[in-house]
Amino acid sequence: MSSLAPDIADRLKRTADGLVPAVVQQHDTGEVLMLGWMDDEALHRTLTTGRATYWSRSRQEYWLKGETSGHVQWVKEVRLDCDGDTLLVKVDQEGAACHTGDRTCFDAVELPTRG
Amino acid sequence: MSSLAPDIADRLKRTADGLVPAVVQQHDTGEVLMLGWMDDEALHRTLTTGRATYWSRSRQEYWLKGETSGHVQWVKEVRLDCDGDTLLVKVDQEGAACHTGDRTCFDAVELPTRG
Repeated sequence: MSSLAPDIADRLKRTADGLVPAVVQQHDTGEVLMLGWMDDEALHRTLTTGRATYWSRSRQEYWLKGETSGHVQWVKEVRLDCDGDTLLVKVDQEGAACHTGDRTCFDAVELPTRG
Repeated sequence: MSSLAPDIADRLKRTADGLVPAVVQQHDTGEVLMLGWMDDEALHRTLTTGRATYWSRSRQEYWLKGETSGHVQWVKEVRLDCDGDTLLVKVDQEGAACHTGDRTCFDAVELPTRG
């Protein structure tokens, strides 16, 4: 049982695993840092503690971003999309967002496009 | 059978439905416009035609963005994240990205955060 406010919980459309994808963006530069996943409790913690918390699908546990790395994400704004199935979390990222040490998880690989 | 290049297909980690979430961002302003989903064929079309194509989970068909609305997304850059399970598609969005008429799918709802 999550502590998420019922009026917010009612608006969420979750995957079969009970998760919602969260696009994480640096609030001032607009960089897309990573994509995380939240269940109701992770969203509740993100909204109420000021620090971004996710559900780790690989470890199957809550993941307070920066808890071990120190690369904390301070929450500035959280938005829900038109369908209620995606979150946009605007943060102030300390240090690297990516576990590889890159600033964002999208720095390393560009795919070839036409032209 | 998709036409996606095998070296790219090998790097993708898909959901049980064979999909990868795609964060869609306006290339110059940095606005996050929407989240779409791609299977291998949708990614192939996006990379090779210059127009963003998704797999519509609700309609269970390919969705060439702007085909009916005219709100085309011209592809500028496509990146794959460190885990191979999320795409970042930088586009030039014509008109509104959201079916509600909003510029982005995240314009309407801000959730209350601490402080």
